[in-house]
Amino acid sequence: MTTSIRFYFDIISPYGYFAAERIEALADRCGAVVDWRPFHMRQVNAEELGVTAPLFQQPIKGPYFAQDVPRMARWFGLPFAPPPIAEVSSVAIHRAIWRLKDQGDEASAAALSLAAFRATHAQTRNLAAPDAVCALAEEIGMDGAALRAALDDPAVKDRLRQETAAAVSAGVWGTPTFKVDDQLFWGSDRLDQVEAWVARGGW
Amino acid sequence: MTTSIRFYFDIISPYGYFAAERIEALADRCGAVVDWRPFHMRQVNAEELGVTAPLFQQPIKGPYFAQDVPRMARWFGLPFAPPPIAEVSSVAIHRAIWRLKDQGDEASAAALSLAAFRATHAQTRNLAAPDAVCALAEEIGMDGAALRAALDDPAVKDRLRQETAAAVSAGVWGTPTFKVDDQLFWGSDRLDQVEAWVARGGW
Repeated sequence: MTTSIRFYFDIISPYGYFAAERIEALADRCGAVVDWRPFHMRQVNAEELGVTAPLFQQPIKGPYFAQDVPRMARWFGLPFAPPPIAEVSSVAIHRAIWRLKDQGDEASAAALSLAAFRATHAQTRNLAAPDAVCALAEEIGMDGAALRAALDDPAVKDRLRQETAAAVSAGVWGTPTFKVDDQLFWGSDRLDQVEAWVARGGW
Repeated sequence: MTTSIRFYFDIISPYGYFAAERIEALADRCGAVVDWRPFHMRQVNAEELGVTAPLFQQPIKGPYFAQDVPRMARWFGLPFAPPPIAEVSSVAIHRAIWRLKDQGDEASAAALSLAAFRATHAQTRNLAAPDAVCALAEEIGMDGAALRAALDDPAVKDRLRQETAAAVSAGVWGTPTFKVDDQLFWGSDRLDQVEAWVARGGW
């Protein structure tokens, strides 16, 4: 049976972007498949961790991450040009990704996720508006109008809440987090361990 | 001029232990020196970050780190047998390390730091009592009695408070953190970047 790498992320996360750019090639190398699973990090921060300030605005941590994130982008040779992250909302794009997954279209869910990471972190685009999500989907050849209509469906809205709760139940509290077998790995730094876990079957 | 890698840590930190086991070899490879700088993580947690629960007892994060830390030890092939971390206090050992640094004995400060990491995380020893610190220092050939006497000196006690404040002023909020030039790197995962920064002079 093919091993699944569960990739839990919020599009708002720059470290999620650094992981998203590498994870499909990693999965190919070790014969795994990636299950792209967005969740609402701000809800987890507020409800589970008691954190309300955006990362970049926190007293000591903010300046650290303001130095680390562009340095990580340079380290990986990735373009980096985000909008003000505090103004970004990833609720609409997450709902769209879950809509595609619920239709059984994992390939489109993965493609839209990666396009959304790139739009947000490399192209200074804010996908907060449902119409912005629709436009992005159309740019990569999807039916944007159908997706746009689905975003107003109460059942689609509810899916993200369910999946955020499911991520928390699975032990997820940060983005990105990866799950292989019963093992959680937090942080884009851990992708080498994710790959080794799949390749070796653990250690 | 030789590059200095400032290594900020609390002996209580298992990730500090994983870094401590590798950092001198790393510095040798890239021609740098290590400046071992203990600080009081619990004080930073309580006063700067508003965190009072020990990491392993936090609601969602606790179970994650309980899985990750032994897995990291196996990953690095390091022995791992800590006492209950919530019962550990590193105040006495940190004071002893600063005492050695203030005497200009960086080699002993580094040796005592590494011995303390190993005692705590690989030998199930709790160094909370000043006498335990004294015994450890004697085991590695130092004058334990002189160190034991210094631990009661109000000036020595004050040094750790000063250095914890200095670490916060330098932007440190977690353990381990490394500083090279004006760059902070948080987490033992980042040692490869620390080495690359020294070797390349940045990127």
